[in-house]
Amino acid sequence: MMSGPVFDEGFRAELYRLFRWRRDVRRFRPDPVAPGLLDHLIAVADLAPSVGLSQPWRFVTVDEPCRRAAVRATFLASNAAALADQPASRADAYAGLKLAGLDQAPCHLAIFAVSDPVQGGGLGRRTMPETVAYSAVMAIHTLWLTARATGLGLGWVSILDPARVHAALDVPTDWILIGYFCLGYPEAESDIPELERAGWERRQAAPVLRR
Amino acid sequence: MMSGPVFDEGFRAELYRLFRWRRDVRRFRPDPVAPGLLDHLIAVADLAPSVGLSQPWRFVTVDEPCRRAAVRATFLASNAAALADQPASRADAYAGLKLAGLDQAPCHLAIFAVSDPVQGGGLGRRTMPETVAYSAVMAIHTLWLTARATGLGLGWVSILDPARVHAALDVPTDWILIGYFCLGYPEAESDIPELERAGWERRQAAPVLRR
Repeated sequence: MMSGPVFDEGFRAELYRLFRWRRDVRRFRPDPVAPGLLDHLIAVADLAPSVGLSQPWRFVTVDEPCRRAAVRATFLASNAAALADQPASRADAYAGLKLAGLDQAPCHLAIFAVSDPVQGGGLGRRTMPETVAYSAVMAIHTLWLTARATGLGLGWVSILDPARVHAALDVPTDWILIGYFCLGYPEAESDIPELERAGWERRQAAPVLRR
Repeated sequence: MMSGPVFDEGFRAELYRLFRWRRDVRRFRPDPVAPGLLDHLIAVADLAPSVGLSQPWRFVTVDEPCRRAAVRATFLASNAAALADQPASRADAYAGLKLAGLDQAPCHLAIFAVSDPVQGGGLGRRTMPETVAYSAVMAIHTLWLTARATGLGLGWVSILDPARVHAALDVPTDWILIGYFCLGYPEAESDIPELERAGWERRQAAPVLRR
């Protein structure tokens, strides 16, 4: 029987500090991200859990200006529509939020999941096919934590039309967009979410039911 | 401007070790999990990213024998159906896999997402409502890493009918089952996934597209 590593109190304290300071970042310094560092983040993300060991995540780096412009256009359209949908009481607050760092972030990354991966032989997803997407989400979270641990910040842009992003990036038809990300060095650090600092929402403790 | 914590090389090496040794655990020792420790894991999971700071995750601990029996029954039925679906070439291999630790794990935990959370004011999920479920997945992954860092193992049971689990646990109708989990101290540690050790599948490096 193999005995594994023991993680000590000091490591756990640092791990919780990483969780507390992770942040969704929308304000970036222009400093570039070294290509080798991005490759490293992706290699670490590959260690994420996946249903049936299917590793369904697919990474796309986006550098071509025409493609970035198309992503920016769908963000602007979706954000304008979201603003128009706000109740009057929240419209000013919504309009004042900075919700993406697409213009400043040196690195853009799209993360997809293949809808029916060959790898894994379909194990574990017959009754819950959404576990394929969930696996990609855990790869994203792994990359996010690793980025923060190296001084980088990640911002998840979900205010966009996934079909337009899919078309703009010209990826295989069976890839599903899970998220579009801005990556770079953050302008500032905080242990309080930007939406909380802006007065939009406050964190609460999770309810737990006993059954 | 607030300056954040700097994570050093030593911490990063331990973090990658945590990712490498995380595992999906299906073989547990009977030792109980202290209730305070479970509360701690849930409190740490609350630090996960969530769309619009909506924190849509909901935790349910499952201890009543009749409810655990209902979950076990849906796992057995779904697993038998999955076995019947296997191609002849993989049926024996599938039948030999241990895919859940429901009978041994001292702690059972179901994690749900509320489908339309009030918290967060709908921000960020107008065009991608699936980000609510994705937020709960990141809380699960946070709990998973924290569990491993404290010596615990987590196993994700996805071979079940989510409607039957929902009914068995008698939770609000607008809660969506994201996953059902076994938690406890693992029988053994390994840095190789159980499905890889069993010869079911092997890990591969993620493809990266440049656009």
